[in-house]
Amino acid sequence: MDIATGSPLDGPDRDTAGEALQGALVDLVDLSLTGKQAHWNLYGPRFRSVHLHLDEVVATARDFADQVAERAAAIGVSPDGRAATVAAGSLPEAPSGWQADTAVVEQLVGTLSTVVARMRERIAKTGEADPVTQDLLITVTAALEKHAWMFRAEHETRG
Amino acid sequence: MDIATGSPLDGPDRDTAGEALQGALVDLVDLSLTGKQAHWNLYGPRFRSVHLHLDEVVATARDFADQVAERAAAIGVSPDGRAATVAAGSLPEAPSGWQADTAVVEQLVGTLSTVVARMRERIAKTGEADPVTQDLLITVTAALEKHAWMFRAEHETRG
Amino acid sequence: MDIATGSPLDGPDRDTAGEALQGALVDLVDLSLTGKQAHWNLYGPRFRSVHLHLDEVVATARDFADQVAERAAAIGVSPDGRAATVAAGSLPEAPSGWQADTAVVEQLVGTLSTVVARMRERIAKTGEADPVTQDLLITVTAALEKHAWMFRAEHETRG
Amino acid sequence: MDIATGSPLDGPDRDTAGEALQGALVDLVDLSLTGKQAHWNLYGPRFRSVHLHLDEVVATARDFADQVAERAAAIGVSPDGRAATVAAGSLPEAPSGWQADTAVVEQLVGTLSTVVARMRERIAKTGEADPVTQDLLITVTAALEKHAWMFRAEHETRG
Amino acid sequence: MDIATGSPLDGPDRDTAGEALQGALVDLVDLSLTGKQAHWNLYGPRFRSVHLHLDEVVATARDFADQVAERAAAIGVSPDGRAATVAAGSLPEAPSGWQADTAVVEQLVGTLSTVVARMRERIAKTGEADPVTQDLLITVTAALEKHAWMFRAEHETRG
Amino acid sequence: MDIATGSPLDGPDRDTAGEALQGALVDLVDLSLTGKQAHWNLYGPRFRSVHLHLDEVVATARDFADQVAERAAAIGVSPDGRAATVAAGSLPEAPSGWQADTAVVEQLVGTLSTVVARMRERIAKTGEADPVTQDLLITVTAALEKHAWMFRAEHETRG
Amino acid sequence: MDIATGSPLDGPDRDTAGEALQGALVDLVDLSLTGKQAHWNLYGPRFRSVHLHLDEVVATARDFADQVAERAAAIGVSPDGRAATVAAGSLPEAPSGWQADTAVVEQLVGTLSTVVARMRERIAKTGEADPVTQDLLITVTAALEKHAWMFRAEHETRG
Amino acid sequence: MDIATGSPLDGPDRDTAGEALQGALVDLVDLSLTGKQAHWNLYGPRFRSVHLHLDEVVATARDFADQVAERAAAIGVSPDGRAATVAAGSLPEAPSGWQADTAVVEQLVGTLSTVVARMRERIAKTGEADPVTQDLLITVTAALEKHAWMFRAEHETRG
Amino acid sequence: MDIATGSPLDGPDRDTAGEALQGALVDLVDLSLTGKQAHWNLYGPRFRSVHLHLDEVVATARDFADQVAERAAAIGVSPDGRAATVAAGSLPEAPSGWQADTAVVEQLVGTLSTVVARMRERIAKTGEADPVTQDLLITVTAALEKHAWMFRAEHETRG
Amino acid sequence: MDIATGSPLDGPDRDTAGEALQGALVDLVDLSLTGKQAHWNLYGPRFRSVHLHLDEVVATARDFADQVAERAAAIGVSPDGRAATVAAGSLPEAPSGWQADTAVVEQLVGTLSTVVARMRERIAKTGEADPVTQDLLITVTAALEKHAWMFRAEHETRG
Amino acid sequence: MDIATGSPLDGPDRDTAGEALQGALVDLVDLSLTGKQAHWNLYGPRFRSVHLHLDEVVATARDFADQVAERAAAIGVSPDGRAATVAAGSLPEAPSGWQADTAVVEQLVGTLSTVVARMRERIAKTGEADPVTQDLLITVTAALEKHAWMFRAEHETRG
Amino acid sequence: MDIATGSPLDGPDRDTAGEALQGALVDLVDLSLTGKQAHWNLYGPRFRSVHLHLDEVVATARDFADQVAERAAAIGVSPDGRAATVAAGSLPEAPSGWQADTAVVEQLVGTLSTVVARMRERIAKTGEADPVTQDLLITVTAALEKHAWMFRAEHETRG
Repeated sequence: MDIATGSPLDGPDRDTAGEALQGALVDLVDLSLTGKQAHWNLYGPRFRSVHLHLDEVVATARDFADQVAERAAAIGVSPDGRAATVAAGSLPEAPSGWQADTAVVEQLVGTLSTVVARMRERIAKTGEADPVTQDLLITVTAALEKHAWMFRAEHETRG
Repeated sequence: MDIATGSPLDGPDRDTAGEALQGALVDLVDLSLTGKQAHWNLYGPRFRSVHLHLDEVVATARDFADQVAERAAAIGVSPDGRAATVAAGSLPEAPSGWQADTAVVEQLVGTLSTVVARMRERIAKTGEADPVTQDLLITVTAALEKHAWMFRAEHETRG
Repeated sequence: MDIATGSPLDGPDRDTAGEALQGALVDLVDLSLTGKQAHWNLYGPRFRSVHLHLDEVVATARDFADQVAERAAAIGVSPDGRAATVAAGSLPEAPSGWQADTAVVEQLVGTLSTVVARMRERIAKTGEADPVTQDLLITVTAALEKHAWMFRAEHETRG
Repeated sequence: MDIATGSPLDGPDRDTAGEALQGALVDLVDLSLTGKQAHWNLYGPRFRSVHLHLDEVVATARDFADQVAERAAAIGVSPDGRAATVAAGSLPEAPSGWQADTAVVEQLVGTLSTVVARMRERIAKTGEADPVTQDLLITVTAALEKHAWMFRAEHETRG
Repeated sequence: MDIATGSPLDGPDRDTAGEALQGALVDLVDLSLTGKQAHWNLYGPRFRSVHLHLDEVVATARDFADQVAERAAAIGVSPDGRAATVAAGSLPEAPSGWQADTAVVEQLVGTLSTVVARMRERIAKTGEADPVTQDLLITVTAALEKHAWMFRAEHETRG
Repeated sequence: MDIATGSPLDGPDRDTAGEALQGALVDLVDLSLTGKQAHWNLYGPRFRSVHLHLDEVVATARDFADQVAERAAAIGVSPDGRAATVAAGSLPEAPSGWQADTAVVEQLVGTLSTVVARMRERIAKTGEADPVTQDLLITVTAALEKHAWMFRAEHETRG
Repeated sequence: MDIATGSPLDGPDRDTAGEALQGALVDLVDLSLTGKQAHWNLYGPRFRSVHLHLDEVVATARDFADQVAERAAAIGVSPDGRAATVAAGSLPEAPSGWQADTAVVEQLVGTLSTVVARMRERIAKTGEADPVTQDLLITVTAALEKHAWMFRAEHETRG
Repeated sequence: MDIATGSPLDGPDRDTAGEALQGALVDLVDLSLTGKQAHWNLYGPRFRSVHLHLDEVVATARDFADQVAERAAAIGVSPDGRAATVAAGSLPEAPSGWQADTAVVEQLVGTLSTVVARMRERIAKTGEADPVTQDLLITVTAALEKHAWMFRAEHETRG
Repeated sequence: MDIATGSPLDGPDRDTAGEALQGALVDLVDLSLTGKQAHWNLYGPRFRSVHLHLDEVVATARDFADQVAERAAAIGVSPDGRAATVAAGSLPEAPSGWQADTAVVEQLVGTLSTVVARMRERIAKTGEADPVTQDLLITVTAALEKHAWMFRAEHETRG
Repeated sequence: MDIATGSPLDGPDRDTAGEALQGALVDLVDLSLTGKQAHWNLYGPRFRSVHLHLDEVVATARDFADQVAERAAAIGVSPDGRAATVAAGSLPEAPSGWQADTAVVEQLVGTLSTVVARMRERIAKTGEADPVTQDLLITVTAALEKHAWMFRAEHETRG
Repeated sequence: MDIATGSPLDGPDRDTAGEALQGALVDLVDLSLTGKQAHWNLYGPRFRSVHLHLDEVVATARDFADQVAERAAAIGVSPDGRAATVAAGSLPEAPSGWQADTAVVEQLVGTLSTVVARMRERIAKTGEADPVTQDLLITVTAALEKHAWMFRAEHETRG
Repeated sequence: MDIATGSPLDGPDRDTAGEALQGALVDLVDLSLTGKQAHWNLYGPRFRSVHLHLDEVVATARDFADQVAERAAAIGVSPDGRAATVAAGSLPEAPSGWQADTAVVEQLVGTLSTVVARMRERIAKTGEADPVTQDLLITVTAALEKHAWMFRAEHETRG
């Protein structure tokens, strides 16, 4: 593939960074779809507060999905964020139908925890292969961990 | 499901409008994923111009997906925009890997044409059941047909 | 009255559209006053969240009241949004004194449901008389039904 | 009523300040409705100029109504800005139907003069009871007197 | 013409919608030129007020001319907004030379009334052929009728 | 005509400046209509890029047409920008129907070249009669020559 | 100290106003630190709502601390807002560690009530010494009492 | 003079407030001219810093001159801010020609001190006559005293 | 005077340009004071429209006074815009007390005509001495002539 | 403590990162208080320039204090930014009373140098424990070192 | 060279204007680099004030370099702003290493004086060849002379 | 050199980081000049699209040049971005005269590739010496690699 020629990375480094970025892309696109699904199907006394918070998670996920995919392209790796690819990914599927606010908060705590754990593995793997990619993944992780804390805090009922 | 109680629509009218909205939702989410996929995998002399245009299509698709899903919720129908649901929908899947600009423009002409045709069927079906839903679908269609014209115009090489 | 001369509508069509618009105007002004009353008298654990949401309802009601009244003037019908006219209208009066958040949410579910039902009757009546007026009422209804869904969702405690 | 507990004012001071604020609230809400009524029903050679000026009066009245009502709540007095309460207030009712620009200007001169006179009484009464409330009423009065001057200036035809 | 291939409308429906849009385009471009002509040649005590109002009419006309022309293109009909085509259209020509403010207001009342009447015929004709086109024409008409009311109100000297 | 009394220019100087400004006005209005015509009827691989550039030409032409016409009024000369006057002007008429991007770029190179040549004649003629008018025409010419360069640059295929 | 020369106040008036301002400064800085502490250590179902509200309290406290300190400087009194000075002040210390939302709301009700009571004493003391200082303290108090009402309203569970 | 009819103040109260406002107006207009004079004629190592600060003083003076004059008009007193009236006022005249930065800072310390002293007399005189006017003068004084402090601080070379 | 060393102009050219700029400065400062005087003392049916227009004249005069004075400084000539200097200038003094709108419009027609005539003399004188100064004076004149036209147009009652 | 459950870090890594963040928090809060203290008590010829610069240091310190505290919460460590905790920290206390500009600049050079040195130790310690925390501390350090350079540059009198 | 065909200027006029523009371009690019160099290497008590002023000079130089280069292209002359071309130009080279504030101010006085003198020669030369180019150079000169005055004013220590 | 005293880095670490920053500075300034040169001398069918893209590259290069130079100053190393220093740097010189769009795109692919390769070497070298400097270089590299990908994608004609 010619577009990869001139990429700043070659061989195994590019494979390592590309794999991490592709995995992050699928997670982030799925997170944006899951967040919207909950945003629309939510009910309960905390509806408005959680409804608004979910849109911030979606904005974070979409923004980083774009950065991650363009980073993949920048190193000569074709990113894949198509519906079927995302559906075949491993985030637990969101439940169908209306969801109570307490259930949504609990679900987000779990989902964000899963994504964060994977991101940390990717950070560990890309440090040597490509510090630029690693730096982006660190930024993504910091933002997701902040959302994760907020949902955990919202989920707690005792200190 | 209690949240549907108090919906402004009941029985068959709600079913009709709900079905149209759910179909529109899946099309629009898929269009947003397809548009991003092309946005990232594009190459060729018109790269920048098409790259920017695709992001406007994605913005249109995301904005209307949100309006359509919230309209479904507003009439008491739970919207479903999860990855698996979207992947099971009927838009032809975008090709994997890098894509030349001419191929992307041609693909968008086809995809937008397909979505527009379905939207027009939904407009025809919802007029009696719910004019509010119909009005939203008309607005969606107007925007998609404008994008479709622009890609057709970009695709033409003779008058 | 001369200002009506040159109106795009005459006779029964103008009466039909004018009546629908005057009714909508009274409902919308009353909704803005009711919303503010609750905004100020609210208390309970969801104070801040509901307090802010009510101001969005008020903004919607004020904006559309202005559009509806100016539409009436545009077809040569003098709009009446004075306090006494609004007070004589039929929205159930808001309770006096402080109100718990749960009560406010329930009240809004009811009030919005009432207004929406009337708006839908007006949509049905104005389609032939004046499609321009009908189009405005459809837009008003879509916005109110979205608020109504959100208050229903906030009101629900089980799916 | 528990929400009043912890109020910075007690007993007669709170009664005095609360009464002044409730009176101001009714005047300001009525002024906003009267202003809009004239905004919509106006005609004559100065239509556009007066139409725009009235909207500034309405914006002033709405903004201060909100501040006054929230000040009442802040001292533990439940504000009442419902349609019936406003309609039962004492501002002379705006005439029904279309109104010539000269008549509207004259009406506003009178209405603003009435409201200003009442506000000055409230300023005189609240100085000892609550300087914070008095300060807000002074600000309200300054803004209304500026509008009153402008309508008087617009009304004059000889020096 | 190849660019029309893939248009969402075919045959008589496209002809009907296209004719309505082309007629609307000529009216709107002419209205924008007429409005500017009066904006520049105006004199009299209401100079500033009418001068500013005319620029809002021009902005409305230019914005909708663009939307109408692009809608024509979107359904595969080539729009024609050239000077000669507009000059050959049927709006009564604006007078040459300086114009008193009273005359300009009267002229605008007449011109807007003419355009609105034609727009309403176009709304009636396009409902079946293309609801998307009809929806745009309804929006155009609502905006023009609002301007028409304002000029009528400005023109009136007795109630 | 009384409005001309008090003009800063009299007799032949006013005639010279007025003639130059009226000529410039017709050219600029026609350029704005020609630019929009191409904006709507364009097709080809550079559709989006040229479509956007044409709107910048239209914005330039509209802005300066307004400045030129108001300058004419400021020196006591009634400007004429009506459709028939513009249609009778001398810019070559834009072709009807769809236009390929290469043809549009070539047409703009020609049209801008024609307008620039006329503007330079007007600059030469007005220097003594009115330096204020000349300064405005210099500004107009600088902007048009910049657009002309850009279309020439876009038109070139070899250095 | 020379910078005090030329101060608009001298002797006892300056001492009185300076003492009130220094006291207000310490309270406001401490309130800003306390508000941030709760902002970070909060948990419970109302996490997001209270988290956001606390930041508005902090913004209010910081803004007024600056105004109060600069007012002290303007009358020739050196303000002291250092950590040790603030720590030695009298606001009850915020608890260490995580805090439940209900506890935070209750704590803020108490803290704001304490600060408001002190501010009202300062208002009473400064009226004669310096009306400019008093006016600033009235403004501060109005803002704090509004926050206090909101936390009381959020704290109430029965009317 | 008829425009004074309907003024909220009569007789001696209006005279007292009017005199204070007229005096404040002259001081503020003169301060704005003096500030600009120094802004233009300044030189020395602190040129840029003082040049920018002077423009903030001018902005303050212009803004409050407008508020003060409109307050006078609002109570039925014709304000006089003409050049001859200002020149006849009592601020010491700024020196002609270029001025060193140290001299400008010293001059501003003096001028602001003079204006502040007069404003404080006006505050003392208007409290009974018109609290609204007094409130405006307090606000003016607070802003001028802040500028005075800054110039004193800039002027000091030892603590 | 050392600051003039390094000025781009020397000897008679600097004197010529400096004299023109100083004259323009006095005219512009006086125009800004005259405009504000009328802005505050205006009455009559066109109050709001003329009141707003006068503020645009004042903004123009202030902006250009600053540019003109800084241009003088830039060529090493100390500008003088003090109250006494302006009062001694030659613009006819504005009348004292309230002014009817018709009188204000007429006054502005005269004042602007006077200033424009002087500016044109300055343009003629500075062309050789300093084209940069001349260019600024041309820009000032263009703006003043536009305002002059608008007031003439507002003043006319017959074409 | 339950809120820590689900933290992305456990055991010693969390302790290491938490300790670094808590130390950084105390330094940053103290820096913000110290910066404000100098901002208010400053005098001397560079007053305005240093006064403005100090507010930028305060803005930097406040922004990063918030990010650092929320990062601590995100990894399950309760941050402590209370007045007493900050007062017990180790930054040398700012002097009381007025401060000359030269002294303030020297003080800031020292304070920033101290904080930067500590931050660099924290960067060294957290690299293995948590790269996300380290990345934040690097960003903080970069900003502080930029301020430190500027104060050093301002402090120097010979190269 | 084909792109020059269609240029509004030919032969000697184009050579004259092109030479002036190319010279101006090199001066302006060099001024932007020199300004940045001083911006980074500055030290001394006026660090912040001069540091900020230099960035305004750089912004002016960059903006006009772009306008000047595009003007050259617009008349068919290829502009050359490459590093080697600029380095070979005649502005005295900025010194290497850190620079004291007094030295920087003195250097800027000299550099701006040199550039202004060259620009005035270019103005004199281009008047006949191309008034549009001359007008741009006049605007550039006006801006540079304003900066030159400010640095002279900052440089002076006695009047 | 005194300004370096107090720098957070000493000896070899400072030399290493300083050398990397100085190299990056020269590359970035040169890239900004090269980008502008192409921006002005471009021609061909993709003129507008490439013309706009180049300005984004220039904006990126200028922004990072400033950050890199200020980082050097922050660690006590004098940055050198003068024209001669840049001209002596090693980026291949841009060709003189007009350039076809295909050539420009190819040139940018090469230039960006060169700069990226050098930046990666600098990242590798600075990790131990100064992680703060390294972090900035990583950010610079990420942005440049994104531009490099886009030019490669634009350059490709087959997948």
